[in-house]
Amino acid sequence: MDDDALPLFRPAMQGFRWDAVAHQPYKQDGSAPFKDISRQVLFQQDNLACELRYFEMDPAGYSTLEQHEHTHAVMILRGRGACLVDRTVQAVKPFDLITIPAWTWHQFRAAPTEALGFLCMVNSQRDRPRLPTDDDLAALKRDPAIARFMSTT
Amino acid sequence: MDDDALPLFRPAMQGFRWDAVAHQPYKQDGSAPFKDISRQVLFQQDNLACELRYFEMDPAGYSTLEQHEHTHAVMILRGRGACLVDRTVQAVKPFDLITIPAWTWHQFRAAPTEALGFLCMVNSQRDRPRLPTDDDLAALKRDPAIARFMSTT
Repeated sequence: MDDDALPLFRPAMQGFRWDAVAHQPYKQDGSAPFKDISRQVLFQQDNLACELRYFEMDPAGYSTLEQHEHTHAVMILRGRGACLVDRTVQAVKPFDLITIPAWTWHQFRAAPTEALGFLCMVNSQRDRPRLPTDDDLAALKRDPAIARFMSTT
Repeated sequence: MDDDALPLFRPAMQGFRWDAVAHQPYKQDGSAPFKDISRQVLFQQDNLACELRYFEMDPAGYSTLEQHEHTHAVMILRGRGACLVDRTVQAVKPFDLITIPAWTWHQFRAAPTEALGFLCMVNSQRDRPRLPTDDDLAALKRDPAIARFMSTT
């Protein structure tokens, strides 16, 4: 999208929605590796080398467990939850910063009774995520803290 | 800064400060074109093509009026105030989105009694800002709304 196509001002509306920004819930079926998560692309322009997206999970929702070469730069915006980065599980709250380096497993999970929303900055040019194999999952779950994190629903 | 040097998790502290992020107040003297503003660089890494910075102005503070080729992608995070982009003055509140296209004059001003803080995403490689000449300022102030905005203290 070039600058001309974008309104200069896009006011925030109630509930972490924005004027002129499409709300994109991820479609899920029984086998989806994510749950109750939506994406809104806030900035995506030819003259910016990164994009800024806002992801939100309903209470008990979670993002896909994945890894890739590109780096994520994350700021929590609303709610409570936890995230896994590499081998570390961390509770998160608004305005916490999280760096997801290349080729680290990562996943976000909203608290059981509270939504979790975060900003994620990424390079516009980036590789596609890789999902875990059964062996990868088994290796991760050998760590009790990670097993506990992944069993939260 | 490479990924290895950065903690994966940098918790938010009280008052929009972050663990392991330097708080950089801009030094000002009588002739400074800005007032009571600070910068915190939240993400700046070799493998990210953009940086994410947090700027905050005290009540009645303001940023430098400037223009440049690179684009700013802004999200307000706290407080109230107004901003000028090109020829438009707009009141702003938390989570509003603002696009500052190439070569547009822009300035942020906190409300008289409330701080204003915002995130700003920019390309890591970018040109230096250009300040207005006396003629530029006179041209801008011919618009009553811009003159009023610029006289707010």
